[in-house]
Amino acid sequence: MVDSPLRAREGLFVLHLFYDWDRTVWGRLSPKEKEVACARLGERLKDFRSGEQCQVVSLACIGRADVGWILLSPELHSLQQLEKDLERIPGPGVLRPVYAFFSMTERSEYLPTEEEVVQGLANRGIPPGSSQWESELAEARQRQKYLTEMRLYPTLPDWPFVSFYPMRKKRVPGANWYALSFEERRKLMQGHGSIGRKYQGKVLQMVTGATGFEEWEWGVTLFSQDPAEIKSIVYEMRFDPVSAWYGEFGPFFCGLQLPLPDLWVRLGLLG
Amino acid sequence: MVDSPLRAREGLFVLHLFYDWDRTVWGRLSPKEKEVACARLGERLKDFRSGEQCQVVSLACIGRADVGWILLSPELHSLQQLEKDLERIPGPGVLRPVYAFFSMTERSEYLPTEEEVVQGLANRGIPPGSSQWESELAEARQRQKYLTEMRLYPTLPDWPFVSFYPMRKKRVPGANWYALSFEERRKLMQGHGSIGRKYQGKVLQMVTGATGFEEWEWGVTLFSQDPAEIKSIVYEMRFDPVSAWYGEFGPFFCGLQLPLPDLWVRLGLLG
Amino acid sequence: MVDSPLRAREGLFVLHLFYDWDRTVWGRLSPKEKEVACARLGERLKDFRSGEQCQVVSLACIGRADVGWILLSPELHSLQQLEKDLERIPGPGVLRPVYAFFSMTERSEYLPTEEEVVQGLANRGIPPGSSQWESELAEARQRQKYLTEMRLYPTLPDWPFVSFYPMRKKRVPGANWYALSFEERRKLMQGHGSIGRKYQGKVLQMVTGATGFEEWEWGVTLFSQDPAEIKSIVYEMRFDPVSAWYGEFGPFFCGLQLPLPDLWVRLGLLG
Amino acid sequence: MVDSPLRAREGLFVLHLFYDWDRTVWGRLSPKEKEVACARLGERLKDFRSGEQCQVVSLACIGRADVGWILLSPELHSLQQLEKDLERIPGPGVLRPVYAFFSMTERSEYLPTEEEVVQGLANRGIPPGSSQWESELAEARQRQKYLTEMRLYPTLPDWPFVSFYPMRKKRVPGANWYALSFEERRKLMQGHGSIGRKYQGKVLQMVTGATGFEEWEWGVTLFSQDPAEIKSIVYEMRFDPVSAWYGEFGPFFCGLQLPLPDLWVRLGLLG
Amino acid sequence: MVDSPLRAREGLFVLHLFYDWDRTVWGRLSPKEKEVACARLGERLKDFRSGEQCQVVSLACIGRADVGWILLSPELHSLQQLEKDLERIPGPGVLRPVYAFFSMTERSEYLPTEEEVVQGLANRGIPPGSSQWESELAEARQRQKYLTEMRLYPTLPDWPFVSFYPMRKKRVPGANWYALSFEERRKLMQGHGSIGRKYQGKVLQMVTGATGFEEWEWGVTLFSQDPAEIKSIVYEMRFDPVSAWYGEFGPFFCGLQLPLPDLWVRLGLLG
Repeated sequence: MVDSPLRAREGLFVLHLFYDWDRTVWGRLSPKEKEVACARLGERLKDFRSGEQCQVVSLACIGRADVGWILLSPELHSLQQLEKDLERIPGPGVLRPVYAFFSMTERSEYLPTEEEVVQGLANRGIPPGSSQWESELAEARQRQKYLTEMRLYPTLPDWPFVSFYPMRKKRVPGANWYALSFEERRKLMQGHGSIGRKYQGKVLQMVTGATGFEEWEWGVTLFSQDPAEIKSIVYEMRFDPVSAWYGEFGPFFCGLQLPLPDLWVRLGLLG
Repeated sequence: MVDSPLRAREGLFVLHLFYDWDRTVWGRLSPKEKEVACARLGERLKDFRSGEQCQVVSLACIGRADVGWILLSPELHSLQQLEKDLERIPGPGVLRPVYAFFSMTERSEYLPTEEEVVQGLANRGIPPGSSQWESELAEARQRQKYLTEMRLYPTLPDWPFVSFYPMRKKRVPGANWYALSFEERRKLMQGHGSIGRKYQGKVLQMVTGATGFEEWEWGVTLFSQDPAEIKSIVYEMRFDPVSAWYGEFGPFFCGLQLPLPDLWVRLGLLG
Repeated sequence: MVDSPLRAREGLFVLHLFYDWDRTVWGRLSPKEKEVACARLGERLKDFRSGEQCQVVSLACIGRADVGWILLSPELHSLQQLEKDLERIPGPGVLRPVYAFFSMTERSEYLPTEEEVVQGLANRGIPPGSSQWESELAEARQRQKYLTEMRLYPTLPDWPFVSFYPMRKKRVPGANWYALSFEERRKLMQGHGSIGRKYQGKVLQMVTGATGFEEWEWGVTLFSQDPAEIKSIVYEMRFDPVSAWYGEFGPFFCGLQLPLPDLWVRLGLLG
Repeated sequence: MVDSPLRAREGLFVLHLFYDWDRTVWGRLSPKEKEVACARLGERLKDFRSGEQCQVVSLACIGRADVGWILLSPELHSLQQLEKDLERIPGPGVLRPVYAFFSMTERSEYLPTEEEVVQGLANRGIPPGSSQWESELAEARQRQKYLTEMRLYPTLPDWPFVSFYPMRKKRVPGANWYALSFEERRKLMQGHGSIGRKYQGKVLQMVTGATGFEEWEWGVTLFSQDPAEIKSIVYEMRFDPVSAWYGEFGPFFCGLQLPLPDLWVRLGLLG
Repeated sequence: MVDSPLRAREGLFVLHLFYDWDRTVWGRLSPKEKEVACARLGERLKDFRSGEQCQVVSLACIGRADVGWILLSPELHSLQQLEKDLERIPGPGVLRPVYAFFSMTERSEYLPTEEEVVQGLANRGIPPGSSQWESELAEARQRQKYLTEMRLYPTLPDWPFVSFYPMRKKRVPGANWYALSFEERRKLMQGHGSIGRKYQGKVLQMVTGATGFEEWEWGVTLFSQDPAEIKSIVYEMRFDPVSAWYGEFGPFFCGLQLPLPDLWVRLGLLG
């Protein structure tokens, strides 16, 4: 660890890492060496996870990779150290990188502002300063704070099915998101958000920002207890103008969240 | 297997897997080891296939891969376990992944609704509640149920020629499928479907949904006893507005469906 | 070979295969083993070529591959068996696949119909049933039959320079081939064809259909005794509206057609 | 070194090099050999850095590479020699190239000209030749010279977070940067620049020219002490018309600037 | 060599070849074997260069490859034999192909015709058949012949900096080069050419034709004694309508032209 930590002023650094597990290289290890390697990987991840605000999601990936990790940390040097350790611990060449995505959790730009809340109260004829006015305003502030906390410091569930994909907004003649005004974008995003709310409790969505770090501008990580719900929400959103006109989507990675011992069994790594 | 299965509420999970068979790695095995590996692969697939609603299609691929498997299962953990076992059983490094596609069978969105059927009867002057009205309605319901069953729980034929490709609908200025109304899409899809019906008995088509799982939105798997029929149906459909204006097609994989022993011979794996 | 052959009702199955010859793997063989491998490849190809309607073109490729084969057969199982044998015979890992393309020979859609021929005779004032009418009609039928035979059952020349590329027609707003009427397409294709006729005797062109088998819709294989003629015809065609507006071209593979012994010398494989 | 050096008439040659550190190959070295290799790499870079106007940035990359170097030199033969030496010194095959980008520092085309400065003074009613006129003009010349020096001979900071990406301007119907007049481009670029100034002291930006050397036209290298500032500036700029309409961005590489001994520790190369 | 040579009726065949020099494979050779390999490569190239009208440019590439050769020959079999020999001589697997491009030198389509020259003389009131008319026409013919010679049989300079890239003209709605008339194209190309003439003596440009051989239509090879001049000319040309609207550019390869012994030193191949 270098002397001065690199901490986010707010939010967390996020690393999505997907690997193939090279069975040829792995096959050259003795059963004992394999056990030790898996145990050390587990200890390294457990150690990281014990850090404040650090989280780990371990995935057995479907199709285009073998394993995936989603790693959250408020400090970047230690997150990068973990990345390099993960690639080193199982032995040279065992984890072959398939895809990596670096991003940060971030506030939503498009939450209703206090001005809007006040305007809404006025529209409903609630006298400013009245007790209802005060209580509704307090509640709105609370919700705003809560939603921002959830975006900056999400708590990832242990739901079994996970889908990750990067995205960006189009900038082509005829469909240029970045040429829209803030108001236009906010209106569009609110319709978009209402689909997300329909799936509350069924699909948890983590959207992280990657502009300046990746070709893509956001990473979308979806968790569900039912894969069909993820197929359903993404399909429904595709008709929403935000996606229909402006969305560009990168490679998708699906996986099943498993405790590490189950992950080793799934891949047939031990014994 | 983990404790709680991950079952689709309806329909089946589908995995298309295409591999090259690494002859260099394979060549290091003794004839006995090769026989055992092939036998164990066969047993593993047979075991999977014996599961309820599970199906397996084994392919000798043409050109861009050596072997392919199309795997259907109502439960995802066991399907993923099969994927990882297939890659493990013939020995490390023997199967080199070429392409994988994860999807689910799904209902058609665009089947005629009961309202439409009733409207059709009314248009023909058939009195509601009359025996003809009742019998035609019952028949329509039956057909609807049958078509939905066929989509959710298809029975794959043993026809020798198979072509698979992923697809999605365009979302570009001037051709944006997702900006069309449901009615517009339904009308377009019905014209599309009528081409499919022309090839009934000659081409069997399985369309599975992958939105949220893949860069592509659907997987199309075509079976025929005559490759020219598949060339013919896809060419004809390309003039249909649904494909002409909105279709985007991914990599194509063609193969010949063979019993495993014939597949080993085709690839020259044994003896 | 499986029990029931897979024969085209008309035309031939065509496989274009391009490989790098891995000199590292090859270098581990003894001179004797190399000789045997080359001899066995030659015998396998000779054996295939002796099949009815089977043809083989062997190429020393320029730049992006070492060797290429263009294989024609009326039966698909035996064609696939040849593909797998070619990759097996020189020893595991020697032929590294670079590109493969699967297609079928097919009729031209746009040949003049009998109705058009009759209309043409009428326009010229030739009385139906007259001897001139009969003789011109017979000749037109003969030509139509001949052109169709040439498309379905081409005879590939031994001309030294060969260029292959896949193509498809555009389907974008502003240039959508599949949204044109048959008449529009036919008119465009006839202009296109007239360029081809200009090069008769200088460039032989085989166009095969791949819709439903490949991302591309056709494969174009050009033979000439002078590479400049191929550069010239393709350049000239690019100005033709069919290509200028609608053509999309895939990877190009050029090679020199050589007898196998010369091919081994060209690659420096023996001695 | 060849006899005649290849010096830039002005500015510096710049090489961005990103590598994976092959742990399999590295793992075959003894601890002593590893130490020697790292020491020799360090000495080679130190030696290069001691050259006049030469600079070196060493990065531990995140995700898609292990290490990166950004190298500046006024002479091209010695810069290329360093590239080849870096790839050779740690032993054959240790550094696997991931991405490389060759460019030159260059003047800004769009700085205010002396004519514009004079026009501005006239507009403000300052008499030509007056002492204020003279002093403001001298100051403007000084600033112009300073900005040009900073572009041609930047001094790279030791800030920990670095992001690099190549870019080019669009040339498509509806958004063709190269069809705009110089005046239009200059006006657009000045708005663009004002965002850059907002982040002064927080983000240092080096823009280098690569037209004629790369598929991309410029390389953008951003340094910050806070990764969120880089995310923020790039996101903000994306709304600026220059990026929104005309910007095309290539692969992004992020890394943490580390002293070499810390870099070896980060990658777990020694001991 | 096969019996009948394959000679261009006019102009030369051109092969651009770019390779990585695999240091792992190379490292297994003894110092003596390395010396012999380099010497034999040098002799093979010298031998080829001694052929009539044959030329060789040897490059130490920057960034995306290690070495490059640009090879010109009036006969194609011997050019291909050289390609295969280059890949064979340093030992199997040493030269790993990175990119190859096959083209031919060709006449410019857009040189002024004799009719235009005559028209120009008439416009200036010079009487046909007068001595001035005769002498200017003779001079124009001479220049035309000279320019054509330079295109068909260029003499490549030993200037140190070389940049190569393939290009083609766009065929999209709104910018379709191949839908322009010959006159429109000629007018556009003459403006394009005038930029080239500005750099006469500073940048030498070889444009070769690849339509029908490659996905690209032309190869552009630029030589200069100053890399900045190449950056400058390509940047300037990008504003020219021919490039701004119609140009599409492929991968760029830059290198330094070196005598072979210096090239071996640059790559650190010997001792």
